[in-house]
Amino acid sequence: MKFTINRDHFVQSVQHVSKAISPRTTIPVLTGIKIVASEDGVTLTGSDSDISIESFIPKEDEDIQLVEIEEPGSIVLQARFFAEIVKKLPEETIELTVADQFATTLKSGSSVFNLNGLDPDEYPRLPEIEEDNVFKLPADLLKNIIRQTVFAVSTVETRPILTGVNWAIEEGQLMCTATDSHRLAMRNVSVETNTNELSFSNVVIPGKSLNELNKILDDNNELTDIIVTENQILFKAKNILFFSRLLDGNYPATKNMIPTQSKTSVTLDTKKFLQAIERALLLSRDGKNNVVNLKTIGNGQLEITSVTPEVGKVTEDIVPLEFAGEELRISFNGKNIIDALKVIDSTDVKIDFTGAMSPFVMKPTEHDNMLHLFSPVRTY
Amino acid sequence: MKFTINRDHFVQSVQHVSKAISPRTTIPVLTGIKIVASEDGVTLTGSDSDISIESFIPKEDEDIQLVEIEEPGSIVLQARFFAEIVKKLPEETIELTVADQFATTLKSGSSVFNLNGLDPDEYPRLPEIEEDNVFKLPADLLKNIIRQTVFAVSTVETRPILTGVNWAIEEGQLMCTATDSHRLAMRNVSVETNTNELSFSNVVIPGKSLNELNKILDDNNELTDIIVTENQILFKAKNILFFSRLLDGNYPATKNMIPTQSKTSVTLDTKKFLQAIERALLLSRDGKNNVVNLKTIGNGQLEITSVTPEVGKVTEDIVPLEFAGEELRISFNGKNIIDALKVIDSTDVKIDFTGAMSPFVMKPTEHDNMLHLFSPVRTY
Repeated sequence: MKFTINRDHFVQSVQHVSKAISPRTTIPVLTGIKIVASEDGVTLTGSDSDISIESFIPKEDEDIQLVEIEEPGSIVLQARFFAEIVKKLPEETIELTVADQFATTLKSGSSVFNLNGLDPDEYPRLPEIEEDNVFKLPADLLKNIIRQTVFAVSTVETRPILTGVNWAIEEGQLMCTATDSHRLAMRNVSVETNTNELSFSNVVIPGKSLNELNKILDDNNELTDIIVTENQILFKAKNILFFSRLLDGNYPATKNMIPTQSKTSVTLDTKKFLQAIERALLLSRDGKNNVVNLKTIGNGQLEITSVTPEVGKVTEDIVPLEFAGEELRISFNGKNIIDALKVIDSTDVKIDFTGAMSPFVMKPTEHDNMLHLFSPVRTY
Repeated sequence: MKFTINRDHFVQSVQHVSKAISPRTTIPVLTGIKIVASEDGVTLTGSDSDISIESFIPKEDEDIQLVEIEEPGSIVLQARFFAEIVKKLPEETIELTVADQFATTLKSGSSVFNLNGLDPDEYPRLPEIEEDNVFKLPADLLKNIIRQTVFAVSTVETRPILTGVNWAIEEGQLMCTATDSHRLAMRNVSVETNTNELSFSNVVIPGKSLNELNKILDDNNELTDIIVTENQILFKAKNILFFSRLLDGNYPATKNMIPTQSKTSVTLDTKKFLQAIERALLLSRDGKNNVVNLKTIGNGQLEITSVTPEVGKVTEDIVPLEFAGEELRISFNGKNIIDALKVIDSTDVKIDFTGAMSPFVMKPTEHDNMLHLFSPVRTY
């Protein structure tokens, strides 16, 4: 194998596929990046068998030559340091040559790296996925959906299914749900499908996969194709394939957990509410489980407090934009509220409480495609 | 005590004095910040008994009122979270009130923090320093001197004196030296003194103190007063006093360690040499102690190599700007060379070798106020 490649494009591809590679893999060849040179260009692959990422560098892009293939072929090179080696090479192009015994040479200007390659035939094949059921989302919207739900997944393995985000499609509506059983985030969006009959309900994508995908996707409105199979999901963006295993098991039914009535309802300025909770959290972070107290103090006013006996107490007075219903006294995990407030793209939020011991719902006021649910915390 | 203070100035002062505070102190009151309000303004103090920092906020600065004192007094408040509390308060000004039992209230807009204060009478006094022997350095030059030497101090406590930078003044010349016994950095500079007879030789400032001082000093050319006593050094910048304990013991004589002859001499482009060593280090970082090999390959050319058998080999060819003397083959710690190259403010550097087993000297070509010495590494 022998080719010359544009360094910057090579660096970016190496960084992309490296996101799938874990140094703790039990399959030695998966510590490497597979590089395949064909007549069309160069394909890189990284995988930890849960996530697999393929990045393609075409021979030309917008009339600029990116790769010159002298001899097609393939090799696997240790991912460790490889991104840094490539990034630090002195010239704009890099020549990669593979000789006998997978002996690989990277040349750039006066710099020469001789690297021990691995046998590319040992590298596992990527799953083959039939593209019958495809739906599409612009990359920037997909990134938003991920950001607005993935923070709420569980980070403990006691119920593995909760470490993923549940995706369901019904009548052209994608509904994404994440919960760690103390809080829940839900996001709806209309999607383009290639068939009106596309529907599924128990597709659970590992939170880790979505976080890595989010890092790789460009923030533009180019459409990403999404294909779901029995146990895999594939995201196809420009020159990138991102495969993720799906989680086994049944995602809990969450729809009927959401209260439909309200006993106390307040509308708040999102930013001011966020900052007040952030200040209250300063005195409840340590060993106090982030517990923040909220109570009505008459005249439709709210008071937020938090106490750490050794340090002191913080009191925040808030005048809601709107207030309706009963007086209330409730405690909750302030950090969960902050996580949600940070992803709500609305100037104001509306919170509906159904009593001190019942879950409460927070929604943006400006649109209806997002909902956050929180359990209260018992403080007595 | 009661005063109202500009939040941004208060935040900055709290951040400055916090740099001296260690949560692991054995003196409980030193986990706090001492705040003293007098007719002139507010003084904050932080200390871990090695370093003490005092920051003063005057009543007015450039005709802008910063503090309004209603009642002078003093208090000690827990440093933990305090910087963050102050930073997150909602309004431009903060009202601080101390009532009985050191009960302190911070008020800003609709936000109220009630904090448990500590008795200010328990706070240790700062050392009193006689200002007989003062010399001056512009803050930006002082920052440079620190940056160009402190990286070379020892980070292990086997010879505690080497964890500091040695300062000596003779005939108006300040000479700063740092060494970890494998490499040495030396920096000379002319200073203004209030007496021509100012001279000292065994002033050893802890590297940690210099690093903290460097973070606090503004990058401008305002003069900093420096006062040295038996066991303390004091830096006086605008509204800041920075005290550091000096290290006990005798700093080793370093002058006669520096070779005066040369068997092989090369002049190199600083940036190209730095990048070549950085690439060579990519294959010698892990368990290879950063060993990089350099040899002459005839025609006045150099080759830099580094090998990790499991991974591969890197070869860098360099054509020196100038070459004189014998052929050479030497190995050294590449990271030490990089540390020095990063602080050398000269386009080219000159290296003088005195054989494969002897220390070698690297100097900027553009001026004579800096010198770096390195021990070679035995590789056979």
